[in-house]
Amino acid sequence: MAYEINDPTLINHYSLDTLKSFASNFMKALGASEEEAEIISDGLMTASQWWHPGQGQGLEKLFRYHRRVKNGGIIPSAPMEWLKDGPSYALLDAAKGFGYVAASRAMSKAVEKAKTTGIAMVGVRHSNHFGIAGYHAMTAAKEGLIGWSFTNAKAEMAPWGSAKVVLGTNPWGIAIPRKDNHAIVLDMALTMSGKGMMMWYEREGREMPDNWALTPDGQVTTDPSAAMAGPLLPIGEYKGYGMSLITDVLAGVMTGALFGLNVFQDDQNFDVGHLMIAIEPQALITIDDFDTRLEQLVAEVKGADPIDPDKPVILPGEVEFERMTARQESGIPVSQKTVETLKTLADDVGIQFTL
Amino acid sequence: MAYEINDPTLINHYSLDTLKSFASNFMKALGASEEEAEIISDGLMTASQWWHPGQGQGLEKLFRYHRRVKNGGIIPSAPMEWLKDGPSYALLDAAKGFGYVAASRAMSKAVEKAKTTGIAMVGVRHSNHFGIAGYHAMTAAKEGLIGWSFTNAKAEMAPWGSAKVVLGTNPWGIAIPRKDNHAIVLDMALTMSGKGMMMWYEREGREMPDNWALTPDGQVTTDPSAAMAGPLLPIGEYKGYGMSLITDVLAGVMTGALFGLNVFQDDQNFDVGHLMIAIEPQALITIDDFDTRLEQLVAEVKGADPIDPDKPVILPGEVEFERMTARQESGIPVSQKTVETLKTLADDVGIQFTL
Repeated sequence: MAYEINDPTLINHYSLDTLKSFASNFMKALGASEEEAEIISDGLMTASQWWHPGQGQGLEKLFRYHRRVKNGGIIPSAPMEWLKDGPSYALLDAAKGFGYVAASRAMSKAVEKAKTTGIAMVGVRHSNHFGIAGYHAMTAAKEGLIGWSFTNAKAEMAPWGSAKVVLGTNPWGIAIPRKDNHAIVLDMALTMSGKGMMMWYEREGREMPDNWALTPDGQVTTDPSAAMAGPLLPIGEYKGYGMSLITDVLAGVMTGALFGLNVFQDDQNFDVGHLMIAIEPQALITIDDFDTRLEQLVAEVKGADPIDPDKPVILPGEVEFERMTARQESGIPVSQKTVETLKTLADDVGIQFTL
Repeated sequence: MAYEINDPTLINHYSLDTLKSFASNFMKALGASEEEAEIISDGLMTASQWWHPGQGQGLEKLFRYHRRVKNGGIIPSAPMEWLKDGPSYALLDAAKGFGYVAASRAMSKAVEKAKTTGIAMVGVRHSNHFGIAGYHAMTAAKEGLIGWSFTNAKAEMAPWGSAKVVLGTNPWGIAIPRKDNHAIVLDMALTMSGKGMMMWYEREGREMPDNWALTPDGQVTTDPSAAMAGPLLPIGEYKGYGMSLITDVLAGVMTGALFGLNVFQDDQNFDVGHLMIAIEPQALITIDDFDTRLEQLVAEVKGADPIDPDKPVILPGEVEFERMTARQESGIPVSQKTVETLKTLADDVGIQFTL
């Protein structure tokens, strides 16, 4: 995941408060409620602290939200509605509202139910891009529960043996809470890589690994340009195809959202679906035993000698939390290009540009 | 998964009834109860119909059960006990009994609860090898629910960046029920391949893909012999490592079973853990809508043009169900070597050899 696509001389650094406040004001100017603006800006700040500016998951998401709200693809302060509410399940109609908000409400509901029943699932239909899968899993981990977030997404992966895209990268976020330490957070697409990474390799003139994507007619290639219009390849070959299909059943078919070929194809029509699962470890084991045993497993994993002595074994999410800590000291990087675009957008929505 | 490791001239074919009856009698002679013998023989017959004799998941498992029962690693008719039982959770102490039996009881309990609450999880501690992950997921699918089975296993995978094995292949079985058709069944280890497959490549003198396993000192290799004592490589590189770690938390740490380095190391000490999750689609959507929408997704997936016109896109589990149908006609293949070993074991446990 470690890549820097921006010229470091064109990177600005801002404090968390400055960026979050700007993002929140921007969202409110777009029509978001106070609660919506808080959730979305918190999610974008998490992405900005976990990842690199070039990955486009931080403030760059504001471009997309601006475009979609303007085009009617996202409805701020949408009248979301609970369609089902049972012992260990619920279903939220997100009414074309913000995906971050819908997924956050859904995971919070799953956590609330799982604390009593042991495990709960909350589906979301008629939603939008929910941001970082790991962010929503963290909503459970912050409450001491294991969180697992699923979403479907636009078709970019072909069924194994085909080059026609039918399924999404359908990212998963899984978070395991740890006592006195950052959670274990696995945040992953079900493809080996993504188009953004391929574009970076293309710009740099580099060959990509041959298991990232196929050409549109299904040939193996290491040339990112040749595969840019082709399907992304799943992790574990046919296994990742199966995982993506199952995710679309859980998040799309079962929730009443769009699925397969139809999901998320333009700025007007999304109807993405999510499924949030929360698991209460204390249903099966005392919290002390869970913590002690988990730390023993972590010690075994991190105690494994690295192949390269300079690269010790890390837990899923560990690099991201280290970056988060570092950036709270040194500031959060935002590319000059992003800053300039945000200035234009701030003018457009009529707020003061405070970066 | 398609490989034939046995000389076809040394393969015998038997009817399902003949094999199942022998397997059941053999298990009863080892001390299994009627119910245990039924579950285990049904699981072994599923493996025998789904897979190839060389994969060792069919009658060959009887060798292992015989050895372990004789060594005290498995206790037939073990006094399994429900330690926890809540709205959407339960925990079974398998008391060193048969893993097939414990997992089957656990998934049945999860299904029973999920029918009322929407989703349920059942953990199992102090268990043994549970057979086919997909078999237990199917227990839910046969009742119209989505089943997801997790197990931990002995350490064969290294944390990403290390060559020291700490985590298991930790297989998953996921089954999605379909109306009037076989379920979608994803049954997969979290590694790209397994030692059995590598041994076959070794015997055949073939190079293996370089993403299957490392040498013991962490070098990439295509030589199966060079990697036989090294770690298996996870699917999706660091992603599969994360999935395996999370599986060990769910199935091992959280259930009170062994985990990490300690699980499943010899014939005396197992204490494997499992987690069974059952999901009731009808909690969120009507069964008619679920069926209709699922069939639409299936049609989109299977409608994707194949790269090789002779290899149409298939669903996870489709090949296995086709084999199952074919073998109900033509008989189930068992290698001559297996037949001979079973004859010896039948003598040992004092039953008539009926194959």
